[in-house]
Amino acid sequence: METNGFTSLNSGLWLNAPAVIGVIGLFFAIFFYFRVKSLPEGNETMNRIAGYIREGAMAFLFRQYQTLAVFGAVVFVAIGFALGWVPAGAFLLGAILSLLAGFVGMKAATYANVRTTQCARSGNKPNTLLVALDGGAVMGLSVAGLGILGMGIIYSTFRDAANFSNIIHAFAVGASSIALFARIGGGIYTKAADVGSDIAGKVIENIPEDDPRNPGVIADNVGDNVGDVAGMGADIYESMIAAIVAAMAIALTAPGNLLPSLVAAGGETENRFAGVILPIALSAIGVVVSIVAIFIARSLKAMNPAMVLRLALIFPPIMLGLASFIMMPLWGITQGVTISVVAGAIGGAIIGLVTDYYTSSTPVARVAEASITGAGTNLIRGLAVGMESVAIPMFVVAAVAWIADHYLGLYGIALSAVGMLGGTAVVMTVDAYGPISDNAGGISEMSGLGPEVRAITDELDAVGNTTAAIGKGFAIGSATLTVVALFSAFNMEVNHARSAAGLPDVQLLITDAKVLIGLLLGSILPFIVGASTMLAVGKAAGAIVEEIRRQFREIPGLMELKAEPEPKKIVDIATKAALSEMILPGLVAVVVPPVVGYLLGPAALAGLLAGSLAVGATMALFMANAGGAWDNAKKYIEKGNLKGYKKGSDVHKNAVVGDMVGDPFKDTSGPGVAILIKVMSVVSLLVAGLIALR
Amino acid sequence: METNGFTSLNSGLWLNAPAVIGVIGLFFAIFFYFRVKSLPEGNETMNRIAGYIREGAMAFLFRQYQTLAVFGAVVFVAIGFALGWVPAGAFLLGAILSLLAGFVGMKAATYANVRTTQCARSGNKPNTLLVALDGGAVMGLSVAGLGILGMGIIYSTFRDAANFSNIIHAFAVGASSIALFARIGGGIYTKAADVGSDIAGKVIENIPEDDPRNPGVIADNVGDNVGDVAGMGADIYESMIAAIVAAMAIALTAPGNLLPSLVAAGGETENRFAGVILPIALSAIGVVVSIVAIFIARSLKAMNPAMVLRLALIFPPIMLGLASFIMMPLWGITQGVTISVVAGAIGGAIIGLVTDYYTSSTPVARVAEASITGAGTNLIRGLAVGMESVAIPMFVVAAVAWIADHYLGLYGIALSAVGMLGGTAVVMTVDAYGPISDNAGGISEMSGLGPEVRAITDELDAVGNTTAAIGKGFAIGSATLTVVALFSAFNMEVNHARSAAGLPDVQLLITDAKVLIGLLLGSILPFIVGASTMLAVGKAAGAIVEEIRRQFREIPGLMELKAEPEPKKIVDIATKAALSEMILPGLVAVVVPPVVGYLLGPAALAGLLAGSLAVGATMALFMANAGGAWDNAKKYIEKGNLKGYKKGSDVHKNAVVGDMVGDPFKDTSGPGVAILIKVMSVVSLLVAGLIALR
Repeated sequence: METNGFTSLNSGLWLNAPAVIGVIGLFFAIFFYFRVKSLPEGNETMNRIAGYIREGAMAFLFRQYQTLAVFGAVVFVAIGFALGWVPAGAFLLGAILSLLAGFVGMKAATYANVRTTQCARSGNKPNTLLVALDGGAVMGLSVAGLGILGMGIIYSTFRDAANFSNIIHAFAVGASSIALFARIGGGIYTKAADVGSDIAGKVIENIPEDDPRNPGVIADNVGDNVGDVAGMGADIYESMIAAIVAAMAIALTAPGNLLPSLVAAGGETENRFAGVILPIALSAIGVVVSIVAIFIARSLKAMNPAMVLRLALIFPPIMLGLASFIMMPLWGITQGVTISVVAGAIGGAIIGLVTDYYTSSTPVARVAEASITGAGTNLIRGLAVGMESVAIPMFVVAAVAWIADHYLGLYGIALSAVGMLGGTAVVMTVDAYGPISDNAGGISEMSGLGPEVRAITDELDAVGNTTAAIGKGFAIGSATLTVVALFSAFNMEVNHARSAAGLPDVQLLITDAKVLIGLLLGSILPFIVGASTMLAVGKAAGAIVEEIRRQFREIPGLMELKAEPEPKKIVDIATKAALSEMILPGLVAVVVPPVVGYLLGPAALAGLLAGSLAVGATMALFMANAGGAWDNAKKYIEKGNLKGYKKGSDVHKNAVVGDMVGDPFKDTSGPGVAILIKVMSVVSLLVAGLIALR
Repeated sequence: METNGFTSLNSGLWLNAPAVIGVIGLFFAIFFYFRVKSLPEGNETMNRIAGYIREGAMAFLFRQYQTLAVFGAVVFVAIGFALGWVPAGAFLLGAILSLLAGFVGMKAATYANVRTTQCARSGNKPNTLLVALDGGAVMGLSVAGLGILGMGIIYSTFRDAANFSNIIHAFAVGASSIALFARIGGGIYTKAADVGSDIAGKVIENIPEDDPRNPGVIADNVGDNVGDVAGMGADIYESMIAAIVAAMAIALTAPGNLLPSLVAAGGETENRFAGVILPIALSAIGVVVSIVAIFIARSLKAMNPAMVLRLALIFPPIMLGLASFIMMPLWGITQGVTISVVAGAIGGAIIGLVTDYYTSSTPVARVAEASITGAGTNLIRGLAVGMESVAIPMFVVAAVAWIADHYLGLYGIALSAVGMLGGTAVVMTVDAYGPISDNAGGISEMSGLGPEVRAITDELDAVGNTTAAIGKGFAIGSATLTVVALFSAFNMEVNHARSAAGLPDVQLLITDAKVLIGLLLGSILPFIVGASTMLAVGKAAGAIVEEIRRQFREIPGLMELKAEPEPKKIVDIATKAALSEMILPGLVAVVVPPVVGYLLGPAALAGLLAGSLAVGATMALFMANAGGAWDNAKKYIEKGNLKGYKKGSDVHKNAVVGDMVGDPFKDTSGPGVAILIKVMSVVSLLVAGLIALR
């Protein structure tokens, strides 16, 4: 037998390796947490402002937890009664780990922001980069560490349970639903505060960004944390879990003849076992290489920050591919696995580069130029750039799927998503680094620390904007691959339940009217989420503008810096709006799949997923990249790159209009739509058995 | 036998009835053409201006014909070699009839515009309505008459040919490809001229709309004709043909067990025959009731114009349903046909009403209000309204499909599209009425005829805007139903070719990686068409602005009305831009399906269609309705409905930005995307047999 290497994988040591690696990841997260906390936190004003931000962010998180507790309890009970209490427990575990990662990561980010400002006062840019990076690493390693720990525990505890597939689906639903609410709620908060403060401050009262007199600035900085740290973290955590679960689900439920041949000379049992363990093993390797990548990036701190972060992002997928290439033969596993993983990793890198191009290069210059003839032409151009930017990433995803399918079928597609997410910990580190630097700049401005401090934080922040765009590309690409892979898992679950009831298999034909009707219905959902989140931002921003104007009107001496604003009132408005407005889009994702499945049957539900996938993936890319292009076109003019037009000119004001539209596009609706398609897929997978007989 | 009534349908008289009804429709078209031409055409200035418009419109049409001749020749030869010369001839016939309808209709519209102005000078509003309506009726009856005549001739000549299904597919491809280029080319022309003249005139030179000094105004008025008359006409003609062909294709190729039971006590032969003839027969009845509706509308000319046009739109579907209800039993045919037709007709009416709501009611007031806080909030709100407006129409289409499928399967869905298009002639009459009234207003302004003339034309024009939005709803709804129905026809064609080659059937499973990869690729295409058309409008509008500024700079005395502008130069820029920029999006629709089918096989092609359907239908609704809402929000402020803000105020200027973005959204990209999905479907149907073995 050639399966010796493989057999060793099936021993106790290897089985617990993922959980152990998860714990190692968490160990480093704690290490960075205490390192950041031990740094000097600057003067009293800086501390007061940072305190406001931390307090606002934590208050939002706790109030969000209260809302989610109600939702979680209802779903827990529903799953408990419908599928049993072990899956219900797995759901809770998936959800709680997500909340925990968000809590720890955001706490660290709200310590790191002011310490980054303080370090920038010393003028030492490399060390300042390090503070922000270490702050982000807490989030990055918490997300990846808790994710792999959770999956590892679930796997080693329940792998022999008859309802193991229900248990992992429920775990994924827990992760997804928290991600959904965290992303949408955080997205509404951050953009309502941003747009509201901008309109009131820059446009109406004519004071600069981050001016300490503007009562909305604290909320704006809180928003960076709840949206771009906590929201993004939950999103990436969910992506990783969903990709792993998609691959596991296919390996668990595929009929013998559809199971890819993974183990050289192995039979169905070996292939199934390898199929289940591989996505966890690969993700665990991803955590290890990510930790290495973070330390390499730290050692390069003296280099150009943009280069440091790009290297950090590129390193883990390459190392994961290399590790897979070496280890698969040792375990007697086909190199088709490595090919799928590498295809996903390279695809992710290409998507990131394309996103970078559309949100920073020639297209941005064109959007900026279009501002010369008016806000209307700026908007037309930005929308066109966003639409155009959809093509290559979707094509790349299709090509990755094609390659992976060629070697390992739909299972390979799921593995390619795992490969694309190999560097999750680093992606999240870099993503959280962005808002920390942004906050650092805000604290510097509000504390009146002078332009040389701001210059350092601004440079770090600018790099963060580009890497954030790259991170979004990874997230949407991997989401699309994951959802594609989940289709077959869904169909297998349905047919599994049907054969248990003595019924024939359903064939999900695209020529079936029910599938097509589902397709039409599914294509609506991203638009409902898009519309409701755009409206939510618009409404909440309006309320914030009113409150800021009230404060300038009613607080004597505010404009003259003789009185303090009341930032907590703005924080309160943003919090309430975000929490109430996140409910409708959140429920759409969770409630529609079981309802459609129950009323119209599994064929319509499959069509629903296909329709929302096609529309959701493209709309998410369109909105994210159009928003990024508008944002950077405005900055392009501010930097004086456009024929001498300056900040404050009419041309710049035209570009500000585009940026304002782009804000909810890229940070609320786009991410909300992207996560919608993932949540719908895992919810459908969970209810597949229940609606299979409809 | 109970099939006596049915057998009579199979006799020579009935077989030629559609062609005869087509000729009757054309007779009335000619009647209205000469009636309009015989009316007085006003003073010398009016005539000169109308002459410019007519000349510009006809010049565009002829230059477009030259471009299309090359395209047509290539496709003709390709079809000839691949499928035979009879299908190639059918392709040409489908294309030439479309061009003929466009030519006659636009000629009539460019006579009717100035005669409408002249009639308005008499102050007689009812008669003025009549002139515009009669002008539109030429287009409406040409489109429907030529459509049904062409289908009738093809049917009665080739119905026993072995390759009859190839022949009708090729006919549909001819109609579709002309529609695609006419719609996209016309859409780019009209919005480039509109946006370009607006920016140069209103924003830069600060002169009113339609001011005779602005050299772009003639091109703007030409654009109304080439976009909203010729482009829209080709689109509606294509919709009608595609719906008929979809139903016929299913009836021709469905295996016996999937053929709906249409004829009471009839066998497979009777059902197949009835399935083929019914869509033509129903469309012919639609032409008859449309003619009646036009005369009823004419007799009500003294009523409120909005009411007259709404009644005209509602009458044909009701009458068609009634006629079907009476005639189906006479022919021994199941009332499932009537139910499908009526479901389509009612669905179309609901979609029209919903479109009307989103582009004229509360949502518009909200968009207008959002202009108070800036152009950014106006845009955010408009985008949200557009996104929200997608839900109900798509839901209605799904419900119609559900009902029709319940009675007659996918064949029923095709019939529901035929039902929705029952009033094609009236829809097109009303659609062409809009630009005629709009032109009439422009001619009045440019000829300096005074405000009382403009008041009448403005009132007629405003009604036209609403009915245009309703027409777009019908077009997108019927397109979606048609494409849904075409899926099964496509699959049947593929399997037909495979079984002829001794190969097993392909099952188009949504869990097949190839179908899903096709879905991802298909979801890109509407964005490519959207991006390229938005960019085309932006670029061409920029060139027009430059030329207008040059004329104001270089023609001495132009601003003081002492010199004439050079409108032909603008017409030339718009023409060239439209013709060169229509090629890329046009080729995407025609070339991508065969290429994907050839390289990746029929499963990927089916997925491609599904992806482009989901994205295309929703994006088309989103763009059309967001554009309509912005347009009317601007008008809402101009009418003084928003807290006293007036035309020219900052708030109004903010709303103008939204309107400018909405222009290419609603009149170029939205319709372009809608037609893309239809063209792709019929092209796929045509090539199905050729790529079936891949």
